[in-house]
Amino acid sequence: MATVKLWTDEDVAKESRVKAVFDDIRKTRKTDFVNNFWRALANQPALLERTWASVKEIMVAPGVLDPLTKEMIYIAVSATNACSYCVHSHTAAARAKGMTDEQYAELTAIIGMANETNALASGLQIPVDREFEVN
Amino acid sequence: MATVKLWTDEDVAKESRVKAVFDDIRKTRKTDFVNNFWRALANQPALLERTWASVKEIMVAPGVLDPLTKEMIYIAVSATNACSYCVHSHTAAARAKGMTDEQYAELTAIIGMANETNALASGLQIPVDREFEVN
Amino acid sequence: MATVKLWTDEDVAKESRVKAVFDDIRKTRKTDFVNNFWRALANQPALLERTWASVKEIMVAPGVLDPLTKEMIYIAVSATNACSYCVHSHTAAARAKGMTDEQYAELTAIIGMANETNALASGLQIPVDREFEVN
Amino acid sequence: MATVKLWTDEDVAKESRVKAVFDDIRKTRKTDFVNNFWRALANQPALLERTWASVKEIMVAPGVLDPLTKEMIYIAVSATNACSYCVHSHTAAARAKGMTDEQYAELTAIIGMANETNALASGLQIPVDREFEVN
Amino acid sequence: MATVKLWTDEDVAKESRVKAVFDDIRKTRKTDFVNNFWRALANQPALLERTWASVKEIMVAPGVLDPLTKEMIYIAVSATNACSYCVHSHTAAARAKGMTDEQYAELTAIIGMANETNALASGLQIPVDREFEVN
Amino acid sequence: MATVKLWTDEDVAKESRVKAVFDDIRKTRKTDFVNNFWRALANQPALLERTWASVKEIMVAPGVLDPLTKEMIYIAVSATNACSYCVHSHTAAARAKGMTDEQYAELTAIIGMANETNALASGLQIPVDREFEVN
Repeated sequence: MATVKLWTDEDVAKESRVKAVFDDIRKTRKTDFVNNFWRALANQPALLERTWASVKEIMVAPGVLDPLTKEMIYIAVSATNACSYCVHSHTAAARAKGMTDEQYAELTAIIGMANETNALASGLQIPVDREFEVN
Repeated sequence: MATVKLWTDEDVAKESRVKAVFDDIRKTRKTDFVNNFWRALANQPALLERTWASVKEIMVAPGVLDPLTKEMIYIAVSATNACSYCVHSHTAAARAKGMTDEQYAELTAIIGMANETNALASGLQIPVDREFEVN
Repeated sequence: MATVKLWTDEDVAKESRVKAVFDDIRKTRKTDFVNNFWRALANQPALLERTWASVKEIMVAPGVLDPLTKEMIYIAVSATNACSYCVHSHTAAARAKGMTDEQYAELTAIIGMANETNALASGLQIPVDREFEVN
Repeated sequence: MATVKLWTDEDVAKESRVKAVFDDIRKTRKTDFVNNFWRALANQPALLERTWASVKEIMVAPGVLDPLTKEMIYIAVSATNACSYCVHSHTAAARAKGMTDEQYAELTAIIGMANETNALASGLQIPVDREFEVN
Repeated sequence: MATVKLWTDEDVAKESRVKAVFDDIRKTRKTDFVNNFWRALANQPALLERTWASVKEIMVAPGVLDPLTKEMIYIAVSATNACSYCVHSHTAAARAKGMTDEQYAELTAIIGMANETNALASGLQIPVDREFEVN
Repeated sequence: MATVKLWTDEDVAKESRVKAVFDDIRKTRKTDFVNNFWRALANQPALLERTWASVKEIMVAPGVLDPLTKEMIYIAVSATNACSYCVHSHTAAARAKGMTDEQYAELTAIIGMANETNALASGLQIPVDREFEVN
């Protein structure tokens, strides 16, 4: 259960600010499906608009990183934060963008290993090598 | 300051198990430089051997993800965990593998955004959409 | 499912140390409802007593921060830790203390933004400005 | 040491996009001092613009939460994430907005307690009470 | 719902690499029960083999720490990371290895307190005493 | 640099509430050395008293877990939270209580492995086995 109402399409239709964002999500993603993340943010139109604008700019707009790489990075952060919703939504998104089982297997292994060595480095309080300090 | 001794090359030379790993790190990476992470793990030969074997298999051995993508995923985990050492070492590694400023800029933006939306999803306790549950 | 038994009122009635805390929770909060957090801690009377004493002193006793501000700070920590139980219980508590939808919207936006900029600062390893070091 | 260059005012003067943001930060905050966070983000103009726009909207623009409450919420998130830079910058900001020692003492106590009970709830896997599920 | 298929014993029987690990888990643990963690990792044979080899070496092989102490340390990490699966599986494992209610009560209290004082130390940015820097 | 003043012994001498706690720390620990954690908390006498009372009850008073096991659990939490101060202070404490290099090596390996498998379980969203749900 969310701590806020999840907006149905009927709710959305009644609020023009929210409707504009949902329309743009559907148009941009070329699907009628709008996931719960946006239905929850709909309670807070300013946050909804700002978040969608950022997601569109960072994750959707063409850049130097390809869309699948972006989703895999997102999964890595979400797994580390133990964010159940985000793991599910971005794993689904990565698969929709073509993530193969082999890629997912390697991604998972890196996430595990990185969390392990992070804990080792923090646990042993290893000082940063001078060689890494380039600025 | 680390909580353990950082092994110098002289220390390493005296312990054959440790020396074997250091030799392999140098050979694999084609550089004489061995960073503090390994000099700290040297206190625990079994952990040193196992960790290097995993890093070699996950990060060095050829796979379906290219080496730079792997490093960027590592950075994402490390930034999320606020692991200073790991951020520094893997950002340096990513640059050594060709990460451009543009790629780094996009990576950074994704890391920030993912941590933001993770907190939103956890804060609002948004339920996972049935559409994402494919298994 | 909890990893420990959740004590019913009947269980509580049989243990005087636990009963004393539950009685004080009910009296202090002016409600018969005692939430699962305390029913789980009941298995560990010393921890139950100490935790309730701290909660009472920090969250209930009058101070310079008003009760709603305290609950919003609690929500911020809980969302950041992805603690599902704590997010639910403290969001309910904040609402019971008068949190409006507008306040909740702003709180949520700050939690998201703070987690984003935290990740940026940790990811870029930004050094603390001398101006901030006042001690 | 940051993983990126910290832009000096001379660097900033040469890039109009960055300069526009720095000018607005100075004008909005009514001070010539621009802290390292922005000097690091300057390497990534799009991220700089978007982050400042969000900070301005969320933290600076008038809302229903007062500026000091906002900063205290920010400190709570930053302490939980162990973000050294953010703790320093937002504690300084909170003090500049009038946070008294008494308020800081209460804030600190809440942050500690919330992290404690978060760990207890996650450690015991306490199920959310039906009473908290209002949606 | 997992993001990957959970392998049934029938699935396992068809893949010799996976079957070899499952056989060893059963033999080592002296039980026919294999928990979901391994059924999820079965999708990624290399990760499955490496992870089981590490678990066997770290958690199962005789060492200077007794098996119950190891499980309690594992619970402490898992509670701190809010990893629901890990909390459940390692609490069950600790009980199977003889953890008493009194031990669990003390463990829980330490986990709570450690997370509290961690947040206090990070929130106040307390500098490390010279006395602690022994290397 | 801490965000608060670190109290010197001269400062402490002037405040009877703080002095009483410092006297008890010295008496209980049988050493004149009082570490910075307490010198920072001295700014907030109520928090100082409550925290010391909890530490004394949880970490110092005799219980079913031995003092060294308690410190190792504390280190595990602190490494996971990347709390530099706490890692240093509790590693020093563990050593003072007799932690051998072998014990520290095993502890470190468990911390790394637990953080790895936590990330795997969260990343794959593995459902809790029915067998683990005993309540």
